Amino acid sequence: MRFAITIEYDGSNLVGWQRQKNGLSVQEVLEKSLFELTGEKTTIQGAGRTDSGVHALGQVAHFDLKKKITTDAIRDGLNFHKKKIYKKIKVSVLTTKKVKKDFHARFSAKQKTYVYKILDRRPPPAIEKKRVWHIRKKLNDKAMKKSAKILVGKHDFTSFRSTECQANSALKTIDTIKILRVREEIQIWIKARSFLHNQVRIIAGTLVLVGRKKWKEKNIKEALKSKKRAAAGQTAPAEGLYLLSVKY
Amino acid sequence: MRFAITIEYDGSNLVGWQRQKNGLSVQEVLEKSLFELTGEKTTIQGAGRTDSGVHALGQVAHFDLKKKITTDAIRDGLNFHKKKIYKKIKVSVLTTKKVKKDFHARFSAKQKTYVYKILDRRPPPAIEKKRVWHIRKKLNDKAMKKSAKILVGKHDFTSFRSTECQANSALKTIDTIKILRVREEIQIWIKARSFLHNQVRIIAGTLVLVGRKKWKEKNIKEALKSKKRAAAGQTAPAEGLYLLSVKY
Repeated sequence: MRFAITIEYDGSNLVGWQRQKNGLSVQEVLEKSLFELTGEKTTIQGAGRTDSGVHALGQVAHFDLKKKITTDAIRDGLNFHKKKIYKKIKVSVLTTKKVKKDFHARFSAKQKTYVYKILDRRPPPAIEKKRVWHIRKKLNDKAMKKSAKILVGKHDFTSFRSTECQANSALKTIDTIKILRVREEIQIWIKARSFLHNQVRIIAGTLVLVGRKKWKEKNIKEALKSKKRAAAGQTAPAEGLYLLSVKY
Repeated sequence: MRFAITIEYDGSNLVGWQRQKNGLSVQEVLEKSLFELTGEKTTIQGAGRTDSGVHALGQVAHFDLKKKITTDAIRDGLNFHKKKIYKKIKVSVLTTKKVKKDFHARFSAKQKTYVYKILDRRPPPAIEKKRVWHIRKKLNDKAMKKSAKILVGKHDFTSFRSTECQANSALKTIDTIKILRVREEIQIWIKARSFLHNQVRIIAGTLVLVGRKKWKEKNIKEALKSKKRAAAGQTAPAEGLYLLSVKY
């Protein structure tokens, strides 16, 4: 039987989604909890390989089990064993359901939604520490909104991906970018079928140049055209990024 | 010169607002930072003496300084020294202003707003861990809304205060109680000039009995009338409570 789960996590003290030797990953937390629950050693495949420090409200993952077990027992059992083994780690399984044998959390995904949060005020965050990118000056969110439109659609995003990105092609289609002001926060909502490594964070870092009035729309156009990582803005810190949901 | 500051904090790893021997308080964090900044040993008086684990988005406090210093320099200096001395502690000074000599953060307050947050879903919180009261069953927020009305106005709140509460009188006036459902969360917003010790948390704990369908409106009325702490519900955990703002 194949199962899909949705997961919420705070990425602060984790090395990211994927198993790594240098620290604890969400994948390892879930795989160990699943082993405790079922006695089966299985790989859990995630929809998005979020980096260290990146959060999720609706990451999706799938795995196979031989054991007969209800979806409720999986959800509750994973949360129970996670709490027992990793008391302080902030990972929670929200839902579990049975899926078809050909369902793949990553490759079956039709659309992913990420949100990037920026706190643009002088005092540092207390409640939202490690949950936002703190920028000490007010940003021009209207200018950011206008410039963001340039990035929507199908483009070669070479300037907007990590130099370590392993995707064969840098051609990606961004479905929508929305920029909202929510009290003292600017939120960048981005939807696409799939993303390049660091794409959302580089887009955020580049739009912030516009928000700071250092860049104009034409600079964004030039950055896209030049197809060089150095032509775009900085990679915004991981702590402001959230994988919100995945559509199938 | 007397100054008033507004402060945001995550109460998770603090013993509360007030200085105590058994751990670090918000007051101590601010007084030490102020001493580093000005060389003056002064007491910082808070508007609300929040308990250990309780958060604040807009706590207000006042203090006197002999030194000539601008309000911006106080805000930035407090945040700078706080960060240097208490790197991991989540406290941030949001604003600073000059006030009259007779201003008192606590006694001049006209109205305080608290919000109590409950996450009523089966899976535990990850992002909101230590920021909400987690209740594994959906609560009836409409019933809670109706029952809350009984508590609005002037009442003897003996049943709704800690047995250790030191206030002379248990007569208090609650200006408003609003209950909102925000996605998977129930928020109880309460406004009053002043509160008894644990009053908001006992109100939250009691309204949850209604939300669980264990109590009805008439039980709330009886609890008020009986004037015994044991007649009301449990004291809801500190981690769901936020001091939102103080009006003068």
